[in-house]
Amino acid sequence: MRFALGLEYDGSAFCGWQTQPGGCGVQDHLQAALSQLADTPVEVTAAGRTDTGVHASAQVVHFDTEAVREPVSWVRGTNANLPPAVRVVWSSEVAPDFHARYSARARTYRYLLVNAPVAPALLHARAGWYHRPLDVAKMVEAARCLPGTHDFSAFRDAQCQARSPVRDMASVGIARRGDLIVFTFTANAFLHHMIRNLVGSLVYVGAGKHEPGWIASLMEERDRRHAAPTFAPDGLYLCAIAYDPSFPLPDFPRHPLLDEIAP
Amino acid sequence: MRFALGLEYDGSAFCGWQTQPGGCGVQDHLQAALSQLADTPVEVTAAGRTDTGVHASAQVVHFDTEAVREPVSWVRGTNANLPPAVRVVWSSEVAPDFHARYSARARTYRYLLVNAPVAPALLHARAGWYHRPLDVAKMVEAARCLPGTHDFSAFRDAQCQARSPVRDMASVGIARRGDLIVFTFTANAFLHHMIRNLVGSLVYVGAGKHEPGWIASLMEERDRRHAAPTFAPDGLYLCAIAYDPSFPLPDFPRHPLLDEIAP
Repeated sequence: MRFALGLEYDGSAFCGWQTQPGGCGVQDHLQAALSQLADTPVEVTAAGRTDTGVHASAQVVHFDTEAVREPVSWVRGTNANLPPAVRVVWSSEVAPDFHARYSARARTYRYLLVNAPVAPALLHARAGWYHRPLDVAKMVEAARCLPGTHDFSAFRDAQCQARSPVRDMASVGIARRGDLIVFTFTANAFLHHMIRNLVGSLVYVGAGKHEPGWIASLMEERDRRHAAPTFAPDGLYLCAIAYDPSFPLPDFPRHPLLDEIAP
Repeated sequence: MRFALGLEYDGSAFCGWQTQPGGCGVQDHLQAALSQLADTPVEVTAAGRTDTGVHASAQVVHFDTEAVREPVSWVRGTNANLPPAVRVVWSSEVAPDFHARYSARARTYRYLLVNAPVAPALLHARAGWYHRPLDVAKMVEAARCLPGTHDFSAFRDAQCQARSPVRDMASVGIARRGDLIVFTFTANAFLHHMIRNLVGSLVYVGAGKHEPGWIASLMEERDRRHAAPTFAPDGLYLCAIAYDPSFPLPDFPRHPLLDEIAP
């Protein structure tokens, strides 16, 4: 049988999603917890392989097992074996052809950026930070060139293993609420470091280091070396995965910081 | 000269406000950072001595020093010497009779409680958690007896060193936004564990273990043993200190999680 799980995790407590020799990946903790519950080795596949320090309010994974457990046990039993910085939010038996990564049609990531003279202590490792005032209107103008099907080589990490640099960006939102600026990106998929690279360059525009048209010219040049440095992982959250309606999955709860205050 | 500082800190990174032999108190870190900047020992006094795990978005401290520094240095220079989980938000020279603790007229604390079947991973150590549905209307009704000048012995920790159990509670607010319940308490001062004890008993009412009138009867009985257990420190934040207008101090920035979403 194939199961899907919905996960929430604080990325600052792990060395990224993917399994690591030292066992510090979210995947390592989850596989150990599920294997203990199933009493047999369990391997999981995630929709998005988040980097070190990147959080998830709505990660989706799938796994196959012959173990028979009460549906609620895949949530409560697994959570009993997990550290508190990661929780299984829901479980659902899925069709054998469901694949957490390949069945995903779109991903939404949010970046929380505190724009204030002093770095945020309470949101330390939970939000990015930029100390000088940022002009959101200019960033919004700069981001107008991003939606659509484009070659995002300008914002692609050198280590990126994707076959193509072309991605279909469905929408980009940038809005301020008090000292918090929230960036929301939805695309069919993202290149390695693509969002952190986009945020870095948009911040340069917001700070007045470049005019809004700079982002469009970076897109045309397709040269990573011309864009701004990669922004910190601290503020990045995997917030939603959209699947074909033929694979119905439970909803995630709304998250106070991400969904209640994001403009 | 006497200075006041505004502080924000993540209490999960320290063993409470007060100085500890191991140096793990927020006070230890702050005194070390200030002493390094002033090049002479500096001792600080705080408005509220928060317990282990309790956070602050608006702690106020004062200290005396003969060291002469640029005003901005007391913020930036101190922050350069502090771990990222605590930040000096502002500094201000104050009158010699200003006292962070004794000049304070009122304190406001907020308690963030996630009310959902699964514990919050992203707000782990940043919010309390109760898994069964809570009836906010019943908790509001139960809390109606709290404002005013009362003997709060029912909610006073056995270790409390206050001379009197009488406190003047200015207001109590309880409101839900999605899965988050926010409790806001303002009083002239609080007894040891008073808010965590109040939250614990209010949660018992919200969960239907007792009728709303139970809180009033606990207040009358004045016996800590009859009330509910102390709630976890994770969700407690020192959010505001009110001083006499004769001691003007800079404002704290609004905090995304506490001020933007709190109902």
